[in-house]
Amino acid sequence: MAVPAPVLYPPFNIVRLSHIEFTVTDLGASRAFYADTLGLQITDSDARAIYMRAMEERVHHCVVLKQGDAPCVGYLGFKLYDEPDLEKAQDYFRSRQLPVEWVERPYQGRTLRTRDEHGIPLEFHVTMDRLPPIHQKYALYKGVKPLRIDHFNCFTPDVDASTEFYNAIGFRLTEYTQDEVTGRLWASWLHRKGGVHDIAFTNGFGPRLHHTAFWAANPLHIIDLLDVMSTTGYLGHIERGPGRHGISNAFFLYVRDPDGHRIEIYTSDYQTVDPEHEPIKWDLKDPQRQTLWGAPAPRSWFEEGSVFAGVEPHKATLEATPIVAP
Amino acid sequence: MAVPAPVLYPPFNIVRLSHIEFTVTDLGASRAFYADTLGLQITDSDARAIYMRAMEERVHHCVVLKQGDAPCVGYLGFKLYDEPDLEKAQDYFRSRQLPVEWVERPYQGRTLRTRDEHGIPLEFHVTMDRLPPIHQKYALYKGVKPLRIDHFNCFTPDVDASTEFYNAIGFRLTEYTQDEVTGRLWASWLHRKGGVHDIAFTNGFGPRLHHTAFWAANPLHIIDLLDVMSTTGYLGHIERGPGRHGISNAFFLYVRDPDGHRIEIYTSDYQTVDPEHEPIKWDLKDPQRQTLWGAPAPRSWFEEGSVFAGVEPHKATLEATPIVAP
Amino acid sequence: MAVPAPVLYPPFNIVRLSHIEFTVTDLGASRAFYADTLGLQITDSDARAIYMRAMEERVHHCVVLKQGDAPCVGYLGFKLYDEPDLEKAQDYFRSRQLPVEWVERPYQGRTLRTRDEHGIPLEFHVTMDRLPPIHQKYALYKGVKPLRIDHFNCFTPDVDASTEFYNAIGFRLTEYTQDEVTGRLWASWLHRKGGVHDIAFTNGFGPRLHHTAFWAANPLHIIDLLDVMSTTGYLGHIERGPGRHGISNAFFLYVRDPDGHRIEIYTSDYQTVDPEHEPIKWDLKDPQRQTLWGAPAPRSWFEEGSVFAGVEPHKATLEATPIVAP
Amino acid sequence: MAVPAPVLYPPFNIVRLSHIEFTVTDLGASRAFYADTLGLQITDSDARAIYMRAMEERVHHCVVLKQGDAPCVGYLGFKLYDEPDLEKAQDYFRSRQLPVEWVERPYQGRTLRTRDEHGIPLEFHVTMDRLPPIHQKYALYKGVKPLRIDHFNCFTPDVDASTEFYNAIGFRLTEYTQDEVTGRLWASWLHRKGGVHDIAFTNGFGPRLHHTAFWAANPLHIIDLLDVMSTTGYLGHIERGPGRHGISNAFFLYVRDPDGHRIEIYTSDYQTVDPEHEPIKWDLKDPQRQTLWGAPAPRSWFEEGSVFAGVEPHKATLEATPIVAP
Repeated sequence: MAVPAPVLYPPFNIVRLSHIEFTVTDLGASRAFYADTLGLQITDSDARAIYMRAMEERVHHCVVLKQGDAPCVGYLGFKLYDEPDLEKAQDYFRSRQLPVEWVERPYQGRTLRTRDEHGIPLEFHVTMDRLPPIHQKYALYKGVKPLRIDHFNCFTPDVDASTEFYNAIGFRLTEYTQDEVTGRLWASWLHRKGGVHDIAFTNGFGPRLHHTAFWAANPLHIIDLLDVMSTTGYLGHIERGPGRHGISNAFFLYVRDPDGHRIEIYTSDYQTVDPEHEPIKWDLKDPQRQTLWGAPAPRSWFEEGSVFAGVEPHKATLEATPIVAP
Repeated sequence: MAVPAPVLYPPFNIVRLSHIEFTVTDLGASRAFYADTLGLQITDSDARAIYMRAMEERVHHCVVLKQGDAPCVGYLGFKLYDEPDLEKAQDYFRSRQLPVEWVERPYQGRTLRTRDEHGIPLEFHVTMDRLPPIHQKYALYKGVKPLRIDHFNCFTPDVDASTEFYNAIGFRLTEYTQDEVTGRLWASWLHRKGGVHDIAFTNGFGPRLHHTAFWAANPLHIIDLLDVMSTTGYLGHIERGPGRHGISNAFFLYVRDPDGHRIEIYTSDYQTVDPEHEPIKWDLKDPQRQTLWGAPAPRSWFEEGSVFAGVEPHKATLEATPIVAP
Repeated sequence: MAVPAPVLYPPFNIVRLSHIEFTVTDLGASRAFYADTLGLQITDSDARAIYMRAMEERVHHCVVLKQGDAPCVGYLGFKLYDEPDLEKAQDYFRSRQLPVEWVERPYQGRTLRTRDEHGIPLEFHVTMDRLPPIHQKYALYKGVKPLRIDHFNCFTPDVDASTEFYNAIGFRLTEYTQDEVTGRLWASWLHRKGGVHDIAFTNGFGPRLHHTAFWAANPLHIIDLLDVMSTTGYLGHIERGPGRHGISNAFFLYVRDPDGHRIEIYTSDYQTVDPEHEPIKWDLKDPQRQTLWGAPAPRSWFEEGSVFAGVEPHKATLEATPIVAP
Repeated sequence: MAVPAPVLYPPFNIVRLSHIEFTVTDLGASRAFYADTLGLQITDSDARAIYMRAMEERVHHCVVLKQGDAPCVGYLGFKLYDEPDLEKAQDYFRSRQLPVEWVERPYQGRTLRTRDEHGIPLEFHVTMDRLPPIHQKYALYKGVKPLRIDHFNCFTPDVDASTEFYNAIGFRLTEYTQDEVTGRLWASWLHRKGGVHDIAFTNGFGPRLHHTAFWAANPLHIIDLLDVMSTTGYLGHIERGPGRHGISNAFFLYVRDPDGHRIEIYTSDYQTVDPEHEPIKWDLKDPQRQTLWGAPAPRSWFEEGSVFAGVEPHKATLEATPIVAP
């Protein structure tokens, strides 16, 4: 099975991933984690929701936390380039028999809600309230000093299908893992904004969200976070890392929020703005794919994820076994 | 004078800056500087030219060194998105009465040569030979471990005019310095690829090239370079830094090559992919504009630059005095 | 003039520099500087004094701030090895006709006060209250994350005499600057605890304290401090750096406290525990002596210092001109 | 069982650990590992031996590699303070019925060979050939940029006995692990030179050498080494890490040389020069003892070690099970 060719002139123009809505069961505990420990900046909060941005973001939020009874993910948010892209997106998804609706979201302009073929809820907007820069207000930096949201990674029951779907709307493949036996994709990484990915897919019980990543400036900030988390009661929240990925070449750490939502701290991938940027192929059997160096990923990392609100996950169609820490 | 609004649908699609051609007077000395000291990788060389790329680049070269009698810059190279963009560019520059010609360049596809209104020679191509990735061949990393070419910075006799010119072809303004007295621009930073700039302009005797920048992963690699340069005979080649810029927020170092061409090592600016990303205004009188912290720039930094081959520089139309180290 | 040979069996055993007492004119402003900005931990405070320690210290304090009318330094504190060393020290200084007295100092055991030949007030103790470790309480780390007091540096009117004095009581010379013309010492660095220095001397109007240094783990913490100071009203307090010293090989930054007391943040010198460790000689004319790389030191750095309480400084006997930033 | 009190006036004065002699089975492979990959500097070599020093060392060697048929450790070398200390050491060991002899070692002065109670071969000298400094010859730095030898760590069948033995000759305990059930020591760390340890002991089949550690300036150099080792055929030589130790607070990495000798790269422990520095007690059951954060140590790390030439190891007298990666 060949990987899809890049779509140079997509049906509508997605600029980048934008934000995510998490439902959490204890807003206070989540605030302590995301704001006090990771260092995201709160831009609004009340008894039912907290909005946060990272240090170099000029938009109102990259994370929305909502109080709820059970942890889940409300939707994945993406920013479009211009107002006409909203109509083009509506037409596109309608033409593929996917449900579309216009929803109201605080601090955002017109917002189109739809879902992908497996049910992942997607929301698209062009405008969000813009805030004054804080990237040089260094007194505000704390925790891992998160600079921006970087990417989403989702479990999908069919990576080939998910890759086709997102490729068709302009995401460009940068790296992928192929099962040597069947020739099918086991994982894929696709971008819009010029890094290794805005969204990635991993074979598994899905759709579920595997993780959401934030960009840090360098590995020492990640080491600082490890020092703090390991001595302030968050040791059990450190799931995997630090290490360097083979795929993406990034230095990484995975932690879990109080509800188990997985957060990656990520730094030092590479620029991919050339449209002909050749995707790098990795063999599923190559242990350096996930971990160029560092301890192997634990079983939880392969199996656990966050459900999307109201979306029932299914077993993957590809049965293939990655390398797990024994 | 207001800054120009971003052009959302430019006449042709520039992906990013691509490469630069330097004429140098001693190819061996330049090889020692660029390859052995900075750490660029040689991709081809003979008695008359050396081609080099940085560690995460998949294209054949970001720097071409040509042996010559006097140091100068041959042209600034930019990559376009798709083949039709070449014709659109040709039409665009012709319609503005600028000379256009198709030139042959080794390792590149069709290449359009023109110049901007002040005479800066520009070359546009879509394809360049692509090479296997080396970003995970860590045994090759040396010097400052340069990852990619980041930007050009040029002296221009009229920053307002230069800013208008590049803005009209799709470059988006991210930061600028305004002379409070006249309201005119003293400097501007414009991007295509999603960082603070692909090209910038500084008021002065021009057109001349002020510097070419390479991206490094973090400040410690820049400190490593300083340690090596200061103890291997290159102490006098360190011109300014390290420090942090107010504009761009980047950690920086400026060094001079054996012919005086100025190279910046640059890390940690910020993402600017949103088309409405608001440009940040700085007052010419604000000393933290150039140097958030660090020693003030020396006089040479304000006055010296590389001429473009065959292009006579002129005095700037704006007389304004920046802050110089006494 | 030859440098003195190390005294392998000194008259009493000094373990290390211990602490310093600064008189400051606004205790609140100094608290904001030392505790909130640099990150020292307050161990006791009242309306008239603040006691602080650095992150890996187990003793009660390395800095004492006292409220007063004019900034000065009360004394330099040193820790002796064992109780009998106090008597031996008393005998030693008495035999050199230097005044000795036993003084009461909070949180310390028996304390011997004397002065050196030029009048620098010195206090020696064996015991100080010991506190539980906090080096793994990472939530407390802030500012430059100072780990320990590292050294004192003093102006002296006669570096040869000062070097002889401290060498005689067991300090071992690690590096020195010699005036090529007269053969006299222009500066010297001497240690007890196994680094480049516990105390250093610089030719100048003295005795005065030039600076007090704290050890940070790595250069990125110093860059973090620069980012914070330059954006929280402390830009004018940054005096020199960052850079790397030729002497000591350390990465450094000099800042001034609200009263002008000079603080160095210092990292990465080298181990000197071998008693035969050969001192490194530097020529006064060598610009890489002070600054292996980085901007030259400003004039203030050569001329300004803190007076010792009640001690009148004098002009240096050696007239020699170091390299100053123009 | 109480830990022993520090011996303030030991029978002879040990300055620091000095060097180690490894027997290796392929001198070329070991040279590629120690010199080309780790970055130690070769100071002499022939067909049968290689001598190396680290970047800030002024002595001839910290590692001696000897060609042999089976990997083992020849001896642990320590530097004494002054010539009379050699005789004092001879008297001391003789009085304890331990064998002593004077041996010839290239590049060293008089050298006393003995062994500890469990058979670990120890060699003491005062003088070794001294070499010009290279710590500012930055062009020579490579690999992990090792600055100096830091410590030895040995398996011993009786940590209580080993701790008593080394404590009696002036090593000072800084941290220890105690088995809560029996009250016996499971591990101990002891120093002479002012850091956490010059030598440490771990309960196990011994005596054997567990590892030899080199000091690096900061964690990023260790990350650089991981990048290089994982892409140059040394992936299987990375045994544990990176992580931060609870004990010592150091950032660490363990790698294995071509013969399996274990090398630690170690940075950022703390200063311990105060003679009353209180040892920190850890519970054997505390998982943060070995690993403040990071993956648990693999089984090999607990079980494998290097034999001392001609010394038969024995089972430990304490049976207690540390936490091992499953």
